[in-house]
Amino acid sequence: MKQNRIIWILSGVIVALALALAGVFVFLSNQPPVKRGPQLITPITPLEPDPAKWAINFPRQYDTWLKTKEQSPTTWGGSQPYSKLERDPRLKTLFAGYSFAKEYNEDRGHYWAVEDVSKTARAPTAGTCWTCKSAVVPGLMKEMGPENFYATPFKELAPRMTHPIACADCHKAETMELTITRPALQEALKAQGKDWTTATRQEMRTLVCSQCHVEYYFKGTGNYLTFPWEKGIRIEQIETYYDSYGFKDWAHAQSGAPMLKMQHPETEFYTAGSTHYAAGVACADCHMPYIRDGATKYTSHWLASPLKYPDQACGACHRDVEYVKKRVTDIQLQTMTTMTRTEESLVAAISAIQTLSNTVGADSQALEQARLLHRRAQMRWDFIAAENSAGFHNPEEALRILAEAIDYARQAELIARQAIKP
Amino acid sequence: MKQNRIIWILSGVIVALALALAGVFVFLSNQPPVKRGPQLITPITPLEPDPAKWAINFPRQYDTWLKTKEQSPTTWGGSQPYSKLERDPRLKTLFAGYSFAKEYNEDRGHYWAVEDVSKTARAPTAGTCWTCKSAVVPGLMKEMGPENFYATPFKELAPRMTHPIACADCHKAETMELTITRPALQEALKAQGKDWTTATRQEMRTLVCSQCHVEYYFKGTGNYLTFPWEKGIRIEQIETYYDSYGFKDWAHAQSGAPMLKMQHPETEFYTAGSTHYAAGVACADCHMPYIRDGATKYTSHWLASPLKYPDQACGACHRDVEYVKKRVTDIQLQTMTTMTRTEESLVAAISAIQTLSNTVGADSQALEQARLLHRRAQMRWDFIAAENSAGFHNPEEALRILAEAIDYARQAELIARQAIKP
Repeated sequence: MKQNRIIWILSGVIVALALALAGVFVFLSNQPPVKRGPQLITPITPLEPDPAKWAINFPRQYDTWLKTKEQSPTTWGGSQPYSKLERDPRLKTLFAGYSFAKEYNEDRGHYWAVEDVSKTARAPTAGTCWTCKSAVVPGLMKEMGPENFYATPFKELAPRMTHPIACADCHKAETMELTITRPALQEALKAQGKDWTTATRQEMRTLVCSQCHVEYYFKGTGNYLTFPWEKGIRIEQIETYYDSYGFKDWAHAQSGAPMLKMQHPETEFYTAGSTHYAAGVACADCHMPYIRDGATKYTSHWLASPLKYPDQACGACHRDVEYVKKRVTDIQLQTMTTMTRTEESLVAAISAIQTLSNTVGADSQALEQARLLHRRAQMRWDFIAAENSAGFHNPEEALRILAEAIDYARQAELIARQAIKP
Repeated sequence: MKQNRIIWILSGVIVALALALAGVFVFLSNQPPVKRGPQLITPITPLEPDPAKWAINFPRQYDTWLKTKEQSPTTWGGSQPYSKLERDPRLKTLFAGYSFAKEYNEDRGHYWAVEDVSKTARAPTAGTCWTCKSAVVPGLMKEMGPENFYATPFKELAPRMTHPIACADCHKAETMELTITRPALQEALKAQGKDWTTATRQEMRTLVCSQCHVEYYFKGTGNYLTFPWEKGIRIEQIETYYDSYGFKDWAHAQSGAPMLKMQHPETEFYTAGSTHYAAGVACADCHMPYIRDGATKYTSHWLASPLKYPDQACGACHRDVEYVKKRVTDIQLQTMTTMTRTEESLVAAISAIQTLSNTVGADSQALEQARLLHRRAQMRWDFIAAENSAGFHNPEEALRILAEAIDYARQAELIARQAIKP
């Protein structure tokens, strides 16, 4: 009798345990799925252009984004809108006949993008000029289609541009994933056989910047925004692309050369074999360093020269930040000294070609050759001059290109001077 | 009684222990003093020129020194004595009228120094030319005095040169300390207000190389070996020094310019703000890396391109050696491409100046100006071309200097062509 009782009790315990175990399984399998990524306090509307709406969920990122209002110089650039034309009057000669001879100011931060493009004396007319200025653009392009957007006059689109460059330019509101919102980059990558949707997160930390920090042109009458990347991103390949296309931005007022203006080609310059890019460093690693705020780590959205926050930017990888700062100073000085030399050779070339073109019965073949060399020299100089790092993004490449520019400019002068009959 | 016996035994033990302790003290205090540094198996005579005599004490260092016999190319240099004139016929034009147009071979390792200087078609005549070729020199200079040494004809000193560059050139035989045996470096440092005897060991690991791997010239009729460092070591400062001195190595056979030949200025180029030097890296860190042999670590004396042993040389600091090798390749290609461009501009300048100088009634002021620019351009090119790293020792400086060289060469051509009356 006693043994039977024990058997009953043990069996009861086994049943109870089995039920408890089953219960746990049922409980666990009915949990809501774990949500990856940031937990939103309030949902954000897809393509929401107003950064203040994102700020409720991401107050730290927003606070740092607000710092792009900041205006202060670095040695060779910065975010103060000083006149480059006043600081270096040679630029008036180099851009003679083009809008950049009217006004060419150092650019301010993302916060000012709408205001600055609205007020510039270069007076843009194409809707395309809005492409990189506002977080409204992704939604508007979806609404209008890119072709329509580009073809609409600049002034017609102006009232819609209620916010400058902000969150929606690079993030999906639903998941905060990095995303490409501008068709020009998507198309340029596609032309190179690349698909950005397969990019790693680290690659995306460069690609989102490459939506705007590139050389571009307006293709055709519809001003279709296009990157000249079909043959590659090196200066020689960009040149071949434009040459094959017979493209010019303007005719130089003094030399008559068919000129190309380079626009902030940070992506092309940085990714063409620079030591940092080769080591896997993304734009965001230096320009959007991680910041500690108490126990939280977040990405700074104060896009600016890392010389404004070297401890965070350089210090993440380099132990000796003072050493790095000295290196940057040295490299930028070497580049800018060579840059000045290049400008002098360009000014000399322009003057010689102008004299030749004013000469009655001038050798037209020599004139054409000299003009072509002027174009080649100045697009190289401009590739480094318009690029926002004073050579630092890719030092050897900067100096290699400037050396070529000097060579072409002096050859242009040589041919022109020889053709000028005494 | 029993207790007394115990007391006697204990006292005996105490006395025995005290005596043993005293004995140990006496023994220890009579040990020979601990000798710092390497323990020699056999003593080495001070200034001993024969490396085999040092080898008994330092077999591993000797074995690696023997590897300087090795002859194999790197992409842009190496230790195979190929003819630079055959590989790049432009050099015949650049060195027209000078011995380097007769023969200009890639140099072999330290092991071959005596043989190579004896056989060169450049046929040296000054005793000074032996200064950097043999470990016999420190002793011989002590015997003769440097002034006498330099002034003795090359052929007269030849029979004394029984050993190539070896141990005694950089080491004190008594202590193995690094030392400066050549007066030219001592004098050059002194002229800069520097005293090498206060240098740290890490500084000495560069300075011993700087005894020979420098730009130099023979001063006065006594061929006194002199480094042009009085105004500084940058190319512009070296130029100012030579200009103030009215010095030329030869008159160019085609252009008639008063030329300067630059000689392997590794020290000047590397120490002028290169990133490695700024980070405290000595020549020996890359060219004489530490080697493990079982449980022993020693310094390799196989002086060569670190591209021949990148794992030891670069791997000591850089984790990703493949990445570093790719960077070296990229930088050297950028430099060498720009180098070729510079040579082309120099050849064009020389041809133009030659035409001008052959023109009856040529503008002598223009001719002089063009020749001066030729001198300035070519000494810059040569500073990079004769330097043994294809730009890698200081990449941005290489490209900055080559850009200047192109500018001066094209200006020389320009002035000459303009002055040639049609």
